[in-house]
Amino acid sequence: MSRGNLFVISAPSGAGKSTLLKKLLAKVPHLAFSVSHTTRNPRPGESNGREYHFVDRPTFEGMRDDQAFLEWAEVHGNLYGTSRAAIEAQQAKGIDVFLDIDVQGASQLRDCRHPGAIFLFIAPPSWQELERRLRGRGTDPEETVQLRLNNARREMEDAGCYDYLIINDRLEEAVDTLRAVVIAERCKARRSPDGQPIDWEKVKG
Amino acid sequence: MSRGNLFVISAPSGAGKSTLLKKLLAKVPHLAFSVSHTTRNPRPGESNGREYHFVDRPTFEGMRDDQAFLEWAEVHGNLYGTSRAAIEAQQAKGIDVFLDIDVQGASQLRDCRHPGAIFLFIAPPSWQELERRLRGRGTDPEETVQLRLNNARREMEDAGCYDYLIINDRLEEAVDTLRAVVIAERCKARRSPDGQPIDWEKVKG
Repeated sequence: MSRGNLFVISAPSGAGKSTLLKKLLAKVPHLAFSVSHTTRNPRPGESNGREYHFVDRPTFEGMRDDQAFLEWAEVHGNLYGTSRAAIEAQQAKGIDVFLDIDVQGASQLRDCRHPGAIFLFIAPPSWQELERRLRGRGTDPEETVQLRLNNARREMEDAGCYDYLIINDRLEEAVDTLRAVVIAERCKARRSPDGQPIDWEKVKG
Repeated sequence: MSRGNLFVISAPSGAGKSTLLKKLLAKVPHLAFSVSHTTRNPRPGESNGREYHFVDRPTFEGMRDDQAFLEWAEVHGNLYGTSRAAIEAQQAKGIDVFLDIDVQGASQLRDCRHPGAIFLFIAPPSWQELERRLRGRGTDPEETVQLRLNNARREMEDAGCYDYLIINDRLEEAVDTLRAVVIAERCKARRSPDGQPIDWEKVKG
């Protein structure tokens, strides 16, 4: 069995990332979202290890101080973090892990790069279309739309730093492209890292 | 319009490369085989620029001395070569070019690497299956089969040097994987090489 890949994925609001990822995960086996650690309490129906790894604040802070997190943040008084070990445990099972993260978080990951992480950026087909999608939500006041557009503009400036750029014009086509990237990267992972002859047993796993 | 990619593809005899490539080209638009130069005479039905670029020996030798060929060889008294300019002309039209070449030729290309060339290796799923396929042709004497198997063994030793390794177990699945690599590499080619903001006009082309 080959080790799974880690895909770090970002997109401006309105690019359609969530829908894309949901469709991708329904279509391609051996794929999962990364499961974050958090200090907030589980909500009804949430299960430890599925939505989040629920830990208390001292545990989280201890992990943080031990550099256990690839990235972490405090939101509304709760701590959230992506544990290196949790991702590696999934990868070890042969699962490709998707880490859905904003451009600032991705930029931090790129600096202290998780070995072999693959960076994907989802973009809308044009500014006009992004604006149409953000306005299409209908109920948002103009200043909220303008704020989102400005954020998107700043985020789009980072797109060139990613390994792959996927344009979400027609949804099914974008899902197919995202799937292609996952499959292509699996063929790469099989490559023997030192140019040595293939180990057939590994190849077939 | 984006520039096309150059895919250099090798496989041992019996891996099923020709069938795979034929199916791929029927399925994916903007793909073509590279067209070689040769000093041999056109056969009936062959057209200059389609099967080959037909040139006389002085022309070929002049091109060769000008380093116009990515690689060249003499076979049965005729010269064959892959012209850098011919490939680049197709790439400039936005076409992805497949250069079907043996592992020795690919190794030369890797040394004086054509900028951005992507190396693909097609492998059979196992030695047993390769042997079965080579024997399956039925009419070949045992020593021919053994020669092919020995050649395949030597060629397989180079597989780890390629960018992608595609296992041709079930044909349709291998075609899908090859298609995934072509599509994924197109998303990469769109990446701005210097990490600069995206040029929307280029992205949409």
